[in-house]
Amino acid sequence: MIPILSIVGKSDSGKTTLIEKLVPELTRRGYRIATVKHDIHGFEVDREGKDSWRHKQAGAHTVVISSPTKAAVIRDVERDLSLEEIREKLIRDVDLILSEGYKKDVQPKVEVFRKEKHKKLLCSKKDNLVAIASNLKFRVGVPCFDLEDTKGLADFIEKDFLKSKNEKEISLRINGKLIPMTPFVRDFVTGTIRGMLSTLKGYEKSKRIEIYIGDDER
Amino acid sequence: MIPILSIVGKSDSGKTTLIEKLVPELTRRGYRIATVKHDIHGFEVDREGKDSWRHKQAGAHTVVISSPTKAAVIRDVERDLSLEEIREKLIRDVDLILSEGYKKDVQPKVEVFRKEKHKKLLCSKKDNLVAIASNLKFRVGVPCFDLEDTKGLADFIEKDFLKSKNEKEISLRINGKLIPMTPFVRDFVTGTIRGMLSTLKGYEKSKRIEIYIGDDER
Repeated sequence: MIPILSIVGKSDSGKTTLIEKLVPELTRRGYRIATVKHDIHGFEVDREGKDSWRHKQAGAHTVVISSPTKAAVIRDVERDLSLEEIREKLIRDVDLILSEGYKKDVQPKVEVFRKEKHKKLLCSKKDNLVAIASNLKFRVGVPCFDLEDTKGLADFIEKDFLKSKNEKEISLRINGKLIPMTPFVRDFVTGTIRGMLSTLKGYEKSKRIEIYIGDDER
Repeated sequence: MIPILSIVGKSDSGKTTLIEKLVPELTRRGYRIATVKHDIHGFEVDREGKDSWRHKQAGAHTVVISSPTKAAVIRDVERDLSLEEIREKLIRDVDLILSEGYKKDVQPKVEVFRKEKHKKLLCSKKDNLVAIASNLKFRVGVPCFDLEDTKGLADFIEKDFLKSKNEKEISLRINGKLIPMTPFVRDFVTGTIRGMLSTLKGYEKSKRIEIYIGDDER
């Protein structure tokens, strides 16, 4: 599962600016980063009158614009998605998801704090605060990085969110719901499936296996 | 797998207009439609200076904008994606994908043709042409609908692309590559996995099963 980290802070604390520094630093280290921003006002699909705008106006649930370097997907949702739902439904092929905001979500958080602007921290350890980026030194039981210390914060993120996530695993979903398994059952299921598939043409050990059973691949 | 149908035709034939009529007709019948449009020029993420635009400028591989009614994902791609890759990587939760254009792709096609504008059809049966929408009657071995007969074309699409796609199936991917199985192997693998999982808490027959084995869920 792709790790999620939220950059939170009161308005005007410099969340976007911090993300603008973190993304190139982590990208330079070889990681692919996704960012998530909440937009309460809604947004438009492309420019008015353009073909994809017309598709969406006509009632398409999802509109894709595909180019040789970028692809955009705009889709209907029934309600605000949590970061976990965003990860599940919308994001793949990246190593880390950085959200701007989402302070009420359960995911781990880095709070940006500027002494000129604010009086009190927004989050504490019980809100899953894992670090602070501030021009003030806090002693609240989590690491506190200087606002300019992008490298230090990136080291922390790399160590706690990016390195230890590579253990082999099996995940099983039934109707979209993750089914927990004990280590024994995991090993049994994994071993049985690998054994059963190992004689198929195209099977290779250590490659990723995906199996879908049911109505369709949706 | 979500069926794909391409609306093709020479420029100015009325592809977008046809999609603008088909989407509400199919939506009214209870189907969720995704549309795909190729954009050779590239496009911008949000408006210049907005937060999500700044995230992308900073080098984020993927940027998500989430609102209570819509979500947008803009991501880097290494090259133009085929419709099959777009289905695989970018689209879910819909019943049909309608692309505008993509005449060189292998997917089935409906050609839009206007006698005032064009001399010859662009596609034939060997290009996987399955129907024509035109103000001229063609006899080329595929159904030909009047340009205004949205209902007739929607009936055809419903019958050939939407109704028969609900058979139970298993799909197996190893490192992203679809592994073909004979019907016997399909039944054997499906039966074994269902049998093995059937005693787990949370298992229900007739629900969709997803299993991932390997490095991570990416």
